[in-house]
Amino acid sequence: MFLNHTITALSSGMASLVAPIPLLATVEAENAPIVLSGVLLTLVVIYLASKLGAEAAIKFDFPPVLGELVAGVIVGVSALHLVVFPESGLSASNSGIMTVVQSINHLSPAALTSVFESQSEVISVLAELGVIVLLFEIGLESDLRQLKEVGVQAVVVACVGVAVPFAAGTAGLMIIFHTAAIPAIFAGAALTATSIGITSKVLSELGRLKSKEGQIIVGAAVIDDVLGIIVLAVVASLAKTGEIDVVNVIYLIVSASVFLLGSILLGGIFNDSFTAVVEKLKTRGNIVIPAFIYALFMAFLANAIHLEAILGAFAAGLVLDESDARNELDELVKPIADMVVPIFFVAVGARADLGVLNPTVPDNRAGLLIAVFLIVVAILGKLVTGWVVFGLPGINRLAIGVGMIPRGEVGLVFAGIGSASGVLDKPLEVSIIIMVILTTFLAPPFLRIAFGDTVEPPASGEPSSEKTVISG
Amino acid sequence: MFLNHTITALSSGMASLVAPIPLLATVEAENAPIVLSGVLLTLVVIYLASKLGAEAAIKFDFPPVLGELVAGVIVGVSALHLVVFPESGLSASNSGIMTVVQSINHLSPAALTSVFESQSEVISVLAELGVIVLLFEIGLESDLRQLKEVGVQAVVVACVGVAVPFAAGTAGLMIIFHTAAIPAIFAGAALTATSIGITSKVLSELGRLKSKEGQIIVGAAVIDDVLGIIVLAVVASLAKTGEIDVVNVIYLIVSASVFLLGSILLGGIFNDSFTAVVEKLKTRGNIVIPAFIYALFMAFLANAIHLEAILGAFAAGLVLDESDARNELDELVKPIADMVVPIFFVAVGARADLGVLNPTVPDNRAGLLIAVFLIVVAILGKLVTGWVVFGLPGINRLAIGVGMIPRGEVGLVFAGIGSASGVLDKPLEVSIIIMVILTTFLAPPFLRIAFGDTVEPPASGEPSSEKTVISG
Repeated sequence: MFLNHTITALSSGMASLVAPIPLLATVEAENAPIVLSGVLLTLVVIYLASKLGAEAAIKFDFPPVLGELVAGVIVGVSALHLVVFPESGLSASNSGIMTVVQSINHLSPAALTSVFESQSEVISVLAELGVIVLLFEIGLESDLRQLKEVGVQAVVVACVGVAVPFAAGTAGLMIIFHTAAIPAIFAGAALTATSIGITSKVLSELGRLKSKEGQIIVGAAVIDDVLGIIVLAVVASLAKTGEIDVVNVIYLIVSASVFLLGSILLGGIFNDSFTAVVEKLKTRGNIVIPAFIYALFMAFLANAIHLEAILGAFAAGLVLDESDARNELDELVKPIADMVVPIFFVAVGARADLGVLNPTVPDNRAGLLIAVFLIVVAILGKLVTGWVVFGLPGINRLAIGVGMIPRGEVGLVFAGIGSASGVLDKPLEVSIIIMVILTTFLAPPFLRIAFGDTVEPPASGEPSSEKTVISG
Repeated sequence: MFLNHTITALSSGMASLVAPIPLLATVEAENAPIVLSGVLLTLVVIYLASKLGAEAAIKFDFPPVLGELVAGVIVGVSALHLVVFPESGLSASNSGIMTVVQSINHLSPAALTSVFESQSEVISVLAELGVIVLLFEIGLESDLRQLKEVGVQAVVVACVGVAVPFAAGTAGLMIIFHTAAIPAIFAGAALTATSIGITSKVLSELGRLKSKEGQIIVGAAVIDDVLGIIVLAVVASLAKTGEIDVVNVIYLIVSASVFLLGSILLGGIFNDSFTAVVEKLKTRGNIVIPAFIYALFMAFLANAIHLEAILGAFAAGLVLDESDARNELDELVKPIADMVVPIFFVAVGARADLGVLNPTVPDNRAGLLIAVFLIVVAILGKLVTGWVVFGLPGINRLAIGVGMIPRGEVGLVFAGIGSASGVLDKPLEVSIIIMVILTTFLAPPFLRIAFGDTVEPPASGEPSSEKTVISG
């Protein structure tokens, strides 16, 4: 009743700017138990999908993360419409979860839309917290000294892996497809950033995260991500103003470098105080809460200086990996990661609309040709990076090149911003999405083949023996 | 730019009902990184506050949960204004976190309000997930067979603990303070429901959860909560229509009974399949994900049939406590609970506005008198429940009575709904809030005194030896 009045008042066009805010807050408070219902049911679907997907993947000898992504696609916008987000243009009535919630609570259409948006917002943030925890865990598993050893190689691999796809993609689109300069540059930029999340998860599952190749890939992916964000900032400001904002470019380059190097250099000092604090605490969560305060604060800091939050979490993990509480922390972070990381992977799959691959729809054909071109550039442009590694005889160059292929969430950020700002037309946007999906889906099996092995993923519940042996 | 246009279009009063929905979705997508910033910073503040509070409490020999609540009050609406929610009537400019976010991102006032609301929504849901995980963990720690032994006693304690404060509160308000019937009944109803969350946490910290007294208190608090929700439903419909909706009352009574008894009876069958599934799974999270699928689904189910989500999680915990994977599950749930439960306790503290206690403000004086009356009824009405326990010589009757005192989050739900529906005037609403705060804050030290002991809370990191010994 009250809710309907509020919405009516809003839509009748007589509401002032001041009035709707407290009213909306009240509406949200009244719908709170229904939003919780939606979140709970969505989480049940996400966890069911992720477990079924991961177990099916392992049965067919694929990495579990691929199964989680496919399961996400199945429950998402492409098939079952259970986990969908308003950003994809769907309304609450297209959401299976919302249909169930609606059949229980009999909401007005406007209230249902409000619940749908709140629920999607919460799941989106949980997915982002998932990738933050994932990168924190990967940071904890990475060995800083090993990463330093491959530092120069990683920088070279990253720079080539950004420059080649960017140049080839932009030039090809302009010459072959006669695309205008700014959208072509934007699409070229979308080809640059490797997904740290997906690559590291696959490497970890193959037991190759701590190999020379794994360390180069992860190191390059980190640098790559920083470069990718700089490229995005440059291209986005180029698209807005028609000229490159030099001050912003310099600011981004400096802040990213200072952030990563600074957090690693200050890490030693922080670790001593971390250990001292942990030893003094007597209440529950004495290790895990201080560790997450640090990780979340670093993620916030990275976000605040307009880098990606995951970089901060990764840096925090790298630093805490050197602390005395490391092994205990590893064990405690595991179940937390098990709870939030699948939300991220299922959400990535759920957002990817495979419908744009359908060649029987005429509108998709223009996009398909461009997509084929972008995919070829995306794969070849990263494959070559393996051959710029120097001074390491016997290194698996193919594995490094393949490891750099998946674009994952970072590519989707490009597609999202490009389409929101109106720079990308539909075929180009669709092509980028297809490129992101295919590189993400192809990389895990390709990586497996490139490493030419059938290493069993470590059984869950076991302590991470690999780590203890190598870094001990 | 785009954002400002959207908001301007909305506020200029020319937007139709159809237009704002996709526009708002786009605005939300653009603000997503800023919402994440706000959530990350809020979590850092919450975790810092909860750890500092818990450690300070333990130093002064109070249960850690009291410290977390006080820390919540300090960072919340009463003092530092760091963790605040729009429902308390505050705008984004009153939020310390939002001021920091604003100084970094330079948002328009309307965009800032939207970010503030999204961030608060996410933290609210995380707090609700926190109390769900808390009740799941408490269910896992409770012994179903022991709970059955004290079943009759718990029912008697619960019924008396609902009837006495309800009758005394309503009658007193009408006779002494000449309150109208419906607000008096509403305030009386707000005195009924014991907070399972706070009581069980304190009992667990005192190492008394598995004592006869502890089992009666928790059992009675569970039944009490069900009764409280029925009372709330009855009173709310009474306030709306002027007469009691009998069908709804019967529906609520039946569904609550069927739900709890049904889940306990079906538990045995479920446990065998749970164990079988867990043994077959080979990927990470093989125990914790199926357990949480079950817990979250039960929470959803309880919510769907208009009970409280926490009841479902508690029932799931009770059932899984009988499974073979129990001990492993206990250890895995611990770090997850350590991460989400403090969000709940800090949020409860942060929402409580101690400003309404200030007697120098004339508006508060009428409320203070009523508050004193309500507090006396709230404490005495629950204290008497200890003396209705029969057939258990030597039982600590004072401890049972004291254990039933805290109202916590359930009382705050009453105050919130009462004030939103306009049934409660300001002094009455304020009195209920003061009653909730004081009973919540007084119960832990009183419970400690009632048990007359100085049991050290178990040091974190240790396996829960108490449980293994008693239920083994």
